[in-house]
Amino acid sequence: MIVPSYIRDGWWTPDDAPAGVLGTGSGDEAPRPAEVLDASTGEPIAQISTAGLDLAGALEHARTVGQRSLGELTFHQRALILKQLAQALTERKDELYALSAQSGATRADAWIDVDGGIGALFTYGSKGRRELPNAQVVLDGPAEQLSKDGSFLGRHVYTRLPGVAVQINAFNFPVWGMLEKLGPSFLAGMPTLVKPATPTAFVAEAAVRIMVESGLLPAGSLQLVSGGVPDLFEHLRLGDLVAFTGSASTAERLRAHDSVQTGGVRFTSETDSINASVLGPDAVTGTPEFDAYIKGLVVELTAKSGQKCTAIRRAIVPAPLQDDVIAAVRERIASRVVLGDPRAEGVTMGPLASRTQREEVLRQVARLVAAGGELVVGGLDQPTVRHADGTTGVAPEGAFVAPVLLRFADAWTPEAHTVEAFGPVASILPYSTAEEAVALVARGGGSLVTSVATHDPEFARTFVLGSGAYNGRILVLDRDDARTSTGHGSPMPHLVHGGPGRAGGGEELGGIRAVLHHMQRTALQGSPDLLTAITGVWHPGAAVSSDAQHPFRKSLATLRIGDQVQAGPRQVTLDDIEDFATSTGDTFYAHMDEEAAAANPFFPGRVAHGYLLVSWAAGMFVDPAPGPVLANYGLEDLRFLTPVVPGDSIRVALTAKQITPRETDDYGEVRWDARILNQRDELVATYDVLTLVAK
Amino acid sequence: MIVPSYIRDGWWTPDDAPAGVLGTGSGDEAPRPAEVLDASTGEPIAQISTAGLDLAGALEHARTVGQRSLGELTFHQRALILKQLAQALTERKDELYALSAQSGATRADAWIDVDGGIGALFTYGSKGRRELPNAQVVLDGPAEQLSKDGSFLGRHVYTRLPGVAVQINAFNFPVWGMLEKLGPSFLAGMPTLVKPATPTAFVAEAAVRIMVESGLLPAGSLQLVSGGVPDLFEHLRLGDLVAFTGSASTAERLRAHDSVQTGGVRFTSETDSINASVLGPDAVTGTPEFDAYIKGLVVELTAKSGQKCTAIRRAIVPAPLQDDVIAAVRERIASRVVLGDPRAEGVTMGPLASRTQREEVLRQVARLVAAGGELVVGGLDQPTVRHADGTTGVAPEGAFVAPVLLRFADAWTPEAHTVEAFGPVASILPYSTAEEAVALVARGGGSLVTSVATHDPEFARTFVLGSGAYNGRILVLDRDDARTSTGHGSPMPHLVHGGPGRAGGGEELGGIRAVLHHMQRTALQGSPDLLTAITGVWHPGAAVSSDAQHPFRKSLATLRIGDQVQAGPRQVTLDDIEDFATSTGDTFYAHMDEEAAAANPFFPGRVAHGYLLVSWAAGMFVDPAPGPVLANYGLEDLRFLTPVVPGDSIRVALTAKQITPRETDDYGEVRWDARILNQRDELVATYDVLTLVAK
Repeated sequence: MIVPSYIRDGWWTPDDAPAGVLGTGSGDEAPRPAEVLDASTGEPIAQISTAGLDLAGALEHARTVGQRSLGELTFHQRALILKQLAQALTERKDELYALSAQSGATRADAWIDVDGGIGALFTYGSKGRRELPNAQVVLDGPAEQLSKDGSFLGRHVYTRLPGVAVQINAFNFPVWGMLEKLGPSFLAGMPTLVKPATPTAFVAEAAVRIMVESGLLPAGSLQLVSGGVPDLFEHLRLGDLVAFTGSASTAERLRAHDSVQTGGVRFTSETDSINASVLGPDAVTGTPEFDAYIKGLVVELTAKSGQKCTAIRRAIVPAPLQDDVIAAVRERIASRVVLGDPRAEGVTMGPLASRTQREEVLRQVARLVAAGGELVVGGLDQPTVRHADGTTGVAPEGAFVAPVLLRFADAWTPEAHTVEAFGPVASILPYSTAEEAVALVARGGGSLVTSVATHDPEFARTFVLGSGAYNGRILVLDRDDARTSTGHGSPMPHLVHGGPGRAGGGEELGGIRAVLHHMQRTALQGSPDLLTAITGVWHPGAAVSSDAQHPFRKSLATLRIGDQVQAGPRQVTLDDIEDFATSTGDTFYAHMDEEAAAANPFFPGRVAHGYLLVSWAAGMFVDPAPGPVLANYGLEDLRFLTPVVPGDSIRVALTAKQITPRETDDYGEVRWDARILNQRDELVATYDVLTLVAK
Repeated sequence: MIVPSYIRDGWWTPDDAPAGVLGTGSGDEAPRPAEVLDASTGEPIAQISTAGLDLAGALEHARTVGQRSLGELTFHQRALILKQLAQALTERKDELYALSAQSGATRADAWIDVDGGIGALFTYGSKGRRELPNAQVVLDGPAEQLSKDGSFLGRHVYTRLPGVAVQINAFNFPVWGMLEKLGPSFLAGMPTLVKPATPTAFVAEAAVRIMVESGLLPAGSLQLVSGGVPDLFEHLRLGDLVAFTGSASTAERLRAHDSVQTGGVRFTSETDSINASVLGPDAVTGTPEFDAYIKGLVVELTAKSGQKCTAIRRAIVPAPLQDDVIAAVRERIASRVVLGDPRAEGVTMGPLASRTQREEVLRQVARLVAAGGELVVGGLDQPTVRHADGTTGVAPEGAFVAPVLLRFADAWTPEAHTVEAFGPVASILPYSTAEEAVALVARGGGSLVTSVATHDPEFARTFVLGSGAYNGRILVLDRDDARTSTGHGSPMPHLVHGGPGRAGGGEELGGIRAVLHHMQRTALQGSPDLLTAITGVWHPGAAVSSDAQHPFRKSLATLRIGDQVQAGPRQVTLDDIEDFATSTGDTFYAHMDEEAAAANPFFPGRVAHGYLLVSWAAGMFVDPAPGPVLANYGLEDLRFLTPVVPGDSIRVALTAKQITPRETDDYGEVRWDARILNQRDELVATYDVLTLVAK
């Protein structure tokens, strides 16, 4: 069976190619399909070929149909679809588990891949609706006043890229790798073309099929190319984006293409790196931190059989604790790890994805040994494994490698920091001082993640500030988070995933940050009226409308940006201040004691409470009868600018600034610009009032 | 005179090179010094050579001494030095004006360069103290709760890069180009090595000399290499950063170096681009927008003689308005532009920087003519100019080019969108619809800036949303901002400068955004206590200290993160709510009408005012007598989470979260975490209280 592609909103295999149109542009003859074998048994399970696939047509479909259909949706609408896609995948995830076992993944491994991927979609479904406006552009930072009179403003705005997001994924996480990129690109409004890795393309295909069959995907928003596309970069151009996960050498080759170097195609890469885990000097044997460290190290050796970009490759430990660490790892592996076919009962660690991978890993282990690495756990021999039928023995047709730990007497051995065996392999390196630990971590040349087990705040601070620049993520393990930590190897959708240098130099995930990677930030300059028209958010100085109807009487259907109520003036007396102090209990001297208040550098004498002003302002602008305004749920960016003294009068202007209807409720958020002024038209206070308003 | 370099905290010329150490690594023989000539007269003014310069030593000096001295300072301390450097430059700016004239810059051109650069330093001096903490790391976004019980949190933190910021600048703005990069790198804590362009290195050297002589520069924080450094990239490594401004072809060559492609050196480029200015269909002859458009176009043709990366190269105008635009440009040039030696009275436009530049510009104009461009203003002949002595005539030794406008009948002519004449040259291109205007702008392949003159909100919105992805900046000109606008060609330090594709794909400036480009963002995971220790900012769940002394009695010298006061409970009665409604005037039905309140989806019945709760909380936590807490200047991120009904009791916990002492005042900011809880320990409200506290 050739794994189908999903192109131009339909399924496609090479049989569908027009006669005479063969190959992917790289030659005249159709390449022979690649064979994919079961990782445990070596039995054939699928074939991979894209011979005759119209890649240029697929990309153009994304740029036209996909851009159009996604462009009709707001962030909230796209986020809601992501949530529904996650639900559709959840309902059918057992199908994905079953397929995953063929790739060597245990149930626990598949959980990381499948449930991790679905979780990323849920997170984007949720964050998209909580943290983005229900609109199509994102504002970045506050407005900058560029002229004294306020007639010329600057504002940063993100708009989506006009092209296609090409996602080239690694073999180890066919579902998570796809969904963690699809979530942000879809939310940004960019159509996606996914290219899974050959060994696990059949799992990715099944996940895409579930999403397609859900009927939720807007036309052109997702396409799948199940196989090689050697001429891909020839077809890319400014406005397109490539998000690559895989080896550093492939990333290097792709990045060098003209379309990236000079054509303006954005290229981000996330490559496996020589990640470290550091045992703090305080985390001696018997401490919770030591136990958490050992547990993490063994998990990273065995989960996905060590085939994780984030796996620990370097265990950097205090020299005196080396032997304890080795003994503890040995003990934990002996008591916990059962290597075998994932379909067999009790197996906790599966084979690598393919025998090619196995050979490659053993070759890298041999290099590490040649460089001085002493094998202290595991070795190069064929391990004994548990077969699917429960029997045990060697499995030469399978891709099994048992966990391997090497010890380097010289922690500075270059190979320990540069040679990666992409399997269940790590090196133990000794250190003496915090500075040495930092320097050893840096030797990795940039990592996706480093973890450190310590309960010593000083060591934690020194270590993190020293090695931050070399890491995309740093996990600090201690007794307080050891049980709740999500672990060294697990990127979280809330946090950025990626790292400098060897790790690829890119960034993925990180909540809304990843959405913005699919958009262009542009500095917009203009008058308040035009910035308001362009962004859909009211800017100070822009036109306001104060018609007869109080804006609190308007539902979301009739309320408009710029609708304003002005109220007041109301004079503040000393009695008011004293009454407020008495009722609230706030008898701070600036309100109560003329002499002491006048001695304060900011006050001319007794002043009104800031909260009195804000409370009164609400009393002035509120329209009390039941109506569409349901609740005041918060307030932001309050600044008290001019003190109010007895005898001053205040008035307030409240202006509808941003309107965010909810997709799944019959109300939405309205943000109001509030300004309190005194009788001299000086700004007394500015803030945003947050309300819920019915549709 | 060979222009000196400033290396390892001392001045250096090739005479200082040790005997036998010649060349910059690229050959055995010292290259002959380059000659720099006066742009108007052709007289020699300086020589450029770095033969024998120890570049590797300079870079290492930055990475060791420079990193150390800047690392001892906080953001606020660095910002204050930037402000003082700006003041030192202001005092001596006449020296820079005098030198600038030799490069062909008029007084107005030099103002852009010198005062613009000083302004950028002032902006970073100010923003650094207002928008960054007085610390050494920057937090990005809120904490993410990664476990249900709050024991495992995520937070993004920026730490500075551990290397050197190499800044390669263009010839057109020797002062601004240096200072707009130095401000952010210095503020980030990265030592800088500046490489100015040969033709104007003598101006950059003078600016560096003023800064050095001010005595303000920390050791190793700034070095200047006045000449070529062909082997520069061989010496760079992970942790270093290159910020390049110049031609797209040079950027392409530099970016291709291994140290960038695989070595992890960050490379950002800002290259001249084929920027556009669009005349809106509403901006017909006689409108303020038409006038603003013509004015902007002529300014961009003549300021710096069109030698600006941001200058307008494509004037995209409604087809029927083409002739009006040409006539108006002609008229304005005739009445306003006086070409000549900047030292002559009345000259408003100087020569190009060198005769080489002149020849290059004329060659590109000839290409545009060959592609169909019709010369409608100016031409290829030697113009008549005003000499320094007031006489007029041609000046074959000078680098003069008069303003040139070409008209293309076919707006889609490829050369009009790809050929750049880096001088006083622009093309007029006709369009019919908004979509066509957007598509023509996109043809430039990515621009630093596009401006559009329109007072039509619909056209502005369509145009900006359609072309945002192709532009780093978009200026919307209309009658409201025409007089106050800072102009098409002027990057503002508050706003990002850079652009996609042809414009280099990089970003500079943009306020604090540019500081962060010099830092690494790392996702930090850990327990509240360790995140607090590492970041210096209190995180919910971290240890608190409630000793006998109220925290309001502690000055900045004794107050510690985590110091807490708990107060309450206090019961809320219906009378309290009614009294608050009466005194404030806030009689919103949710507080006054049991039946109507109960019908509201969020309230069980009548509820207390949110502002009552916040006011009472202040009454509970405040310590009223005069003391170190001087004022409450604001409040942020207030959210009302649980309604309070009559009979409920509230209490409050106020915890010192972040402490920001000021460098130049005897007080600083303290941010407090405030939490109001009810008698069931449910969170009623959370917010940050902002106070000023004496040192």
